Amino acid sequence: MIRRFYSTILGSSVGKFPKNTSDIPTTDLLIKLGFVSQPNSGLTHWLPLGLWTVRNIIGIIRKHHDKIGCQEVSLSVMSHHSLWDKTKRWQNDELFKVGEFCLAATAEEEITQLVQRYADSYKKLPIITYQIGRKYRNEKRPRGGLLRGREFIMKDAYSFDVNQTNALKSFEKMNQVYYDIFKEIKVPFVKANADSGDIGGDLSYEWHFVSEHGEDTLLECDACGVIGNIERVRPHFEDGKYANEAQVNYHLTKDGDLCVVYSPKGRRVNYKFLKEEDLVDFRPGLSSQEAIEIFKDPQQSEFKNIIRVMDVGVGPGTLLPDLEVPYVRSRMTTFEDVSFTDAQDGDTCSLCKAGQLKSFKGIEVGHTFYLGKKYSEALNAGFADSEGQKQLYEMGCYGIGVSRLVAAIAEATRDSYGLRWPASVAPVQLDVVVAGSFTGDKTAVDELVSNMQGVRVRVDDEDGGLGEKLARSKRIGIPLQLIVGKQYPQVEIEIRGAHGDLGKLETEIQDQNGLKKLVVDIQKAPETVRKLLSVM
Amino acid sequence: MIRRFYSTILGSSVGKFPKNTSDIPTTDLLIKLGFVSQPNSGLTHWLPLGLWTVRNIIGIIRKHHDKIGCQEVSLSVMSHHSLWDKTKRWQNDELFKVGEFCLAATAEEEITQLVQRYADSYKKLPIITYQIGRKYRNEKRPRGGLLRGREFIMKDAYSFDVNQTNALKSFEKMNQVYYDIFKEIKVPFVKANADSGDIGGDLSYEWHFVSEHGEDTLLECDACGVIGNIERVRPHFEDGKYANEAQVNYHLTKDGDLCVVYSPKGRRVNYKFLKEEDLVDFRPGLSSQEAIEIFKDPQQSEFKNIIRVMDVGVGPGTLLPDLEVPYVRSRMTTFEDVSFTDAQDGDTCSLCKAGQLKSFKGIEVGHTFYLGKKYSEALNAGFADSEGQKQLYEMGCYGIGVSRLVAAIAEATRDSYGLRWPASVAPVQLDVVVAGSFTGDKTAVDELVSNMQGVRVRVDDEDGGLGEKLARSKRIGIPLQLIVGKQYPQVEIEIRGAHGDLGKLETEIQDQNGLKKLVVDIQKAPETVRKLLSVM
Repeated sequence: MIRRFYSTILGSSVGKFPKNTSDIPTTDLLIKLGFVSQPNSGLTHWLPLGLWTVRNIIGIIRKHHDKIGCQEVSLSVMSHHSLWDKTKRWQNDELFKVGEFCLAATAEEEITQLVQRYADSYKKLPIITYQIGRKYRNEKRPRGGLLRGREFIMKDAYSFDVNQTNALKSFEKMNQVYYDIFKEIKVPFVKANADSGDIGGDLSYEWHFVSEHGEDTLLECDACGVIGNIERVRPHFEDGKYANEAQVNYHLTKDGDLCVVYSPKGRRVNYKFLKEEDLVDFRPGLSSQEAIEIFKDPQQSEFKNIIRVMDVGVGPGTLLPDLEVPYVRSRMTTFEDVSFTDAQDGDTCSLCKAGQLKSFKGIEVGHTFYLGKKYSEALNAGFADSEGQKQLYEMGCYGIGVSRLVAAIAEATRDSYGLRWPASVAPVQLDVVVAGSFTGDKTAVDELVSNMQGVRVRVDDEDGGLGEKLARSKRIGIPLQLIVGKQYPQVEIEIRGAHGDLGKLETEIQDQNGLKKLVVDIQKAPETVRKLLSVM
Repeated sequence: MIRRFYSTILGSSVGKFPKNTSDIPTTDLLIKLGFVSQPNSGLTHWLPLGLWTVRNIIGIIRKHHDKIGCQEVSLSVMSHHSLWDKTKRWQNDELFKVGEFCLAATAEEEITQLVQRYADSYKKLPIITYQIGRKYRNEKRPRGGLLRGREFIMKDAYSFDVNQTNALKSFEKMNQVYYDIFKEIKVPFVKANADSGDIGGDLSYEWHFVSEHGEDTLLECDACGVIGNIERVRPHFEDGKYANEAQVNYHLTKDGDLCVVYSPKGRRVNYKFLKEEDLVDFRPGLSSQEAIEIFKDPQQSEFKNIIRVMDVGVGPGTLLPDLEVPYVRSRMTTFEDVSFTDAQDGDTCSLCKAGQLKSFKGIEVGHTFYLGKKYSEALNAGFADSEGQKQLYEMGCYGIGVSRLVAAIAEATRDSYGLRWPASVAPVQLDVVVAGSFTGDKTAVDELVSNMQGVRVRVDDEDGGLGEKLARSKRIGIPLQLIVGKQYPQVEIEIRGAHGDLGKLETEIQDQNGLKKLVVDIQKAPETVRKLLSVM
């Protein structure tokens, strides 16, 4: 069955567009071009073009999971609180509740209970199981709908092993699956260490598309090549090389003490790091000035202390600003050598201590975690070992945001004109556009299409100007446009989205002011199209 | 990729089974055989075998919808109350609520609003759009999980037309789609009129599998062939042919009057019909005896009336039981010729007045509705006609319970041994079972499987006895077992599930005590398997 483009596709009769769409946020562009509709903030209706894209992404994800023997399941979205009580996750504000049930945001509880029912012996392990479906999160400030929604499509996988050695093998297998998936999608990506602490943790990775529009900042070492999310990378300061000058922030602790935080001037204090150190507990929402004023109030501060926290980059020789409050030495405590600022461009890598860190932007699209026994312990879930003794599962979990991927791919690949899908996920790979000037037999077009097996092709032989049809196809981001016109039996193939190396092709590609195209005989077109798509 | 059967498939390492499984309810059988798991009443976890079955069903449904140009979308499950307020459906106890949202049980509201956004002109109609996904219903007494669940998988389609004539064309197209879907599944089915009133309403149909285990009773006329659900078929009584004797039921009305209901002895009173007549409003939950006693109490009944309601089958010559309460003629009202009993086996068809009705059991699996302007009016949703005037959409809606179908197919096709899937939806169509007695080259099996393109095939070459492997495969309901054993290169094909006419095949099928099988050369096996599957 060939569908006729485009006016019959719900949502895709695109109206007027500015030539330059750079100012339109990606989610809005997806809405205007008929991929999705947003009934409410954080919710998404998938229209045909969007749904086809989702399905192509799911196809790639499924293929690579199945290849290594992962087993697909599909769990109930409603999950009973009794399980979540055991893992102490029921009291999470971001869980939507429906009576005794929540709408699952993730499935560690349910999947562990399910696997427990069947994999009761070491002989039945390892098991890696996954599902692709809707998940829910009561996001207080849903943004952009697709990047952070209340309802979203997610692939979540879980591995179950008999011991840590095997669990880490499963973890590595899954990292390879992720590598293969993102490689096939053909958007540049990186694997970033996601362990907090040193840059080189190896039990949790974030997978990011590289995109200047990304919301995450990543740091890559130009020597050891390791990449980390800036939120999780602490800088390395060589001994004795302290900052010339410190900056200071004041906070009140929950006990009413004053906490004075010193860090190298110009660096961002990472309060997550500070919290992990568990030294002080801040009263939230106060500016430095407010903290100082409350502390100075004699009724508040009479018996209160001052706690100084010095970043590791602050030391002998660093100029410290004067304290803005009166103090008594005996009521002052100082913690030194605490590491709580973000690393930044140009820092020395804390892992290899040789290379320099370079920053770039990324969009997170996946996460792989080694979990250990965190959930199996809480749920008392395990198997009988070879001696019949009960052991707890060693687990891992692995997520890919599928709806998020749609927006992330769109964002990382779009240009000022519109969308530009990689062939791997494009809702349609080739638009056959029949020009008004074509006077040949229409069956030639049908025959052409019938020779395109394996290619997602649509025919646009509606009324309308050729320029308008091409513009629409390109704006939507279809990788290839094939024009059947007056040069028939020669046809022209225009290349909208090239994400691979076209140089590998033997075909003769012309470049006309940035528009890449080639002219071939209609008989050769299917072969040329397949070759082009294979590197796009 | 070939998967190795079965111990590696989550949930499908079947334990001990009785030879006769007739006593095991179908949902329990699906659980024991590893198709689904039930975490809580009315909720379902789909395991690999179940999920593959669901996916095959979805494939058939999607194919037939796409063939006529239906457009697939996927709406957010969370739906805002403001829409449901407009259609007065928010106050439904069966809607799960999550704050300002419900979990959609059906999508008339959302889809109408969505279509309104794009199909704003008559030129863009008709549109038939559908989705396949999870739906929610706060079922007070969820039964069997799959037949009536709180979370279920459903295909719901909606048609939008410019006028009634076109809407009825869409309705007929969709009825054809349903016919084609159920035909392809190959479980015997019927289309039953679902309009209340006469048997012959033509704007709403229920689609049922024919099964002695069905929970619905259907009536078919042996003359005109029309089928109706007993709950919606009123009997036909020829003039003057009244029942010999009437039975009587007493009720109190909400006003405290006594209502005496007379119906032909032996017939079931259908209180839904009585309610539709809108004559009296009963106080619920009272037995006849209780109603009488309350009425007799002088403090209750002093100024109360008696209302007699006579069924159309009760008339001159019918013996009426004496009233069990004192009465005054002046305070008595009688309604005659009211039709409120169920039709039954042997009744004359009320439609053609010629044939006799015959009853049989069915399982409802689909429903097609002509809706008219019910929703477009409530939502003020429409389009501009050729003169630019706003008109409301003429709509239809069309549902198939996908998860319900899994249980319904299993129920309608199982036998005393176990499941028996039609080839159309079977999770696996062919199990290649390698016997211990096979001494040939294992590559012969791989080659056989690689020649089976288009067939869902699995290889069972694990350790284990041949008998046990075959029993497992047949119990799970795999249509064909191919045994590679000592007769190699001759292989044996056993036929577990035959739902079509095998007589059409030229192949030589032997029948050994009910076990249908044939022996072919391994080279010919792929062709034979395809032929067999095409009629199974």
